[in-house]
Amino acid sequence: MTAPAFGFELLHREASTRARLGKFRTPHGVIDTPTFMPVGTQGTVKGVDAGRLRETGAQMILGNTYHLSLRPGEKTVAALGGLHEFMKWDGPILTDSGGFQVFSLAERMTFDETGVCFKSHIDGSKIELSPERAVAIQEDLGSDVAMVFDHVVALPNERDVVADAMRRSVRWAERCKVAAKRADQALFAIVQGGLDAELRAESAERLVALDFVGYAIGGLSVGELPSEMYAALDFTTPLLPEDRPRYLMGVGRPIDLLEGIARGVDLFDCVMPTRNGRNALAFTDSGSVRLRNQQYALDREPLDPNCCCLACRHSRGYLRHLFQAKEMLGPMLVSIHNLTYYQRVMAEARRAILQNRFQDFLIEKRRGWGIREASATPDR
Amino acid sequence: MTAPAFGFELLHREASTRARLGKFRTPHGVIDTPTFMPVGTQGTVKGVDAGRLRETGAQMILGNTYHLSLRPGEKTVAALGGLHEFMKWDGPILTDSGGFQVFSLAERMTFDETGVCFKSHIDGSKIELSPERAVAIQEDLGSDVAMVFDHVVALPNERDVVADAMRRSVRWAERCKVAAKRADQALFAIVQGGLDAELRAESAERLVALDFVGYAIGGLSVGELPSEMYAALDFTTPLLPEDRPRYLMGVGRPIDLLEGIARGVDLFDCVMPTRNGRNALAFTDSGSVRLRNQQYALDREPLDPNCCCLACRHSRGYLRHLFQAKEMLGPMLVSIHNLTYYQRVMAEARRAILQNRFQDFLIEKRRGWGIREASATPDR
Repeated sequence: MTAPAFGFELLHREASTRARLGKFRTPHGVIDTPTFMPVGTQGTVKGVDAGRLRETGAQMILGNTYHLSLRPGEKTVAALGGLHEFMKWDGPILTDSGGFQVFSLAERMTFDETGVCFKSHIDGSKIELSPERAVAIQEDLGSDVAMVFDHVVALPNERDVVADAMRRSVRWAERCKVAAKRADQALFAIVQGGLDAELRAESAERLVALDFVGYAIGGLSVGELPSEMYAALDFTTPLLPEDRPRYLMGVGRPIDLLEGIARGVDLFDCVMPTRNGRNALAFTDSGSVRLRNQQYALDREPLDPNCCCLACRHSRGYLRHLFQAKEMLGPMLVSIHNLTYYQRVMAEARRAILQNRFQDFLIEKRRGWGIREASATPDR
Repeated sequence: MTAPAFGFELLHREASTRARLGKFRTPHGVIDTPTFMPVGTQGTVKGVDAGRLRETGAQMILGNTYHLSLRPGEKTVAALGGLHEFMKWDGPILTDSGGFQVFSLAERMTFDETGVCFKSHIDGSKIELSPERAVAIQEDLGSDVAMVFDHVVALPNERDVVADAMRRSVRWAERCKVAAKRADQALFAIVQGGLDAELRAESAERLVALDFVGYAIGGLSVGELPSEMYAALDFTTPLLPEDRPRYLMGVGRPIDLLEGIARGVDLFDCVMPTRNGRNALAFTDSGSVRLRNQQYALDREPLDPNCCCLACRHSRGYLRHLFQAKEMLGPMLVSIHNLTYYQRVMAEARRAILQNRFQDFLIEKRRGWGIREASATPDR
């Protein structure tokens, strides 16, 4: 008998926080948690080829069901060998369900209990998405981890709206579980309920009863303050089973990742390292560097003397020039730097967990980034 | 005593054509000729990092004096360690003189015997360029090979105009030679004279008398037919010394490189592999592939089954998707493919020269590319 395709092993619980160290086994390899997943929206992490992406230290990546189903279409991806073969990424891939994009990007969206109807942002064509359809698309894409199709609402919002969307998300999660057929694809549920502890508890309790391979915390980083998000994590993660991976969706800044880890989160994804990289903003241990600033024009130093990424072989002056001259290599290199930086912070975090000094590590990182403890002001 | 910084060794003359095999020694290494130099206009070969560029097989690259002097400015490049350090390209670099760009790109250009005056295409500022200034800029950039500042005219043109520009170019070449000071930078002259055998002969004779390290053939691929360009090479290369490298500037399609090699040319540069790559056009042994065509949407085959470049690990369907989705990775990968293809054709050409079968090799390549012998029709 072969081992089951998926498994989460909890290796260590950190002494000073709720941080955890683990291993998550998938059909495309075992990853170390906590881990950060770069976002490959349209079948590519923007500006970074698969080899360079691997060099950043990335172990698992994310693909977007909404985008890939519109273009090139999941049937095309399947005909070209599935998402791993398509992108030539041989590590694990998680696909989101499209829920977040449908409720934030789609035009003329309408929904009922069955699912949602919307117009493609690419060609205006009418598209329907439902729990069953979201699972079918993800099965065609062939990701290792599929997400349930959920109803996402912006925050702040009325309690009734949040509660209604949360309960619909639970019913849709159940339909997703019934629809899922692939043994080599795990399905993660998504806890909703906004910033309301009671609603989050109801969502978590009902989803845990349905027994999913992993649990995501959704509907955060959608307009609320960081302090509100941290508070929501404070009361949500204890509701989730210890022996399943926990994934905080679409978050965030390096500090948000560490605050999430301190509260027991294992998986993260965000477009921030690549999107900011394309905009000439680089992350470092002493805060972010806006490379377009004139002060870097003659700067011979690398972005970060301790970084061994491709960008840090060059001077800041060179990187600035690339952005001034609108050369593709600028976005390419700073995206690589930021992805490498995120992976390095995660590797440091895993080490700090193992050594039971995560609290000190978090304080030290906050200081470097110039962030006051428990800051209630969102980053601009 | 150390060996001189530069040297050209003629290893073999092919039996069936005027093709030559050689080694060109520079302060940043020895290169095999014939060779193709990718173009790094603004301090980067567009969309390709230095490591990936090396992987294509490129041995020597080209930088543009005109572009770099306008942005970031040669003094900035010098302050950041010179062009090699700036780009982190440790192989040889050749810089053009700006002549071609000034006479083709610059706005409100005026010239006299001293030099040219023009407005920057970036910010409209007034700029002067002269033989002495072109040399000084290239010395600041620190390339291995600098080009003389020449007067380029479009073809076809009146004989008087071509003759006047050619004679001015000779006088300017002499001034460049006087101005050049760096022992670690070689200066190449540029033979002008359009399609006129007498003018080319006069230019070559006078420049050869001035004794340059290498000789370029300029003012071609500026509007004339390929057959006219080949004819100009037919009567120009025999006028150049056997023991100096010969460089055909700004040329061209793969067939043009091979026709040039057959006529005794050693060095080439062109933006075509990267520019076409960015436009989804890929070169292969059986002609070019327009990846945007619908026929490739479900194509699981690579661009070229014999190519080991990064792009050819993917399906044509994936590459097409990247262009449809406007993802940077499309231009990046197809630029890498085209550069790899150009280098492979050059490596094959060098082997064919050594084995005295260049004529057959040329015929075989023409057949693959679907080009009739001695075609007089320009590629569209």
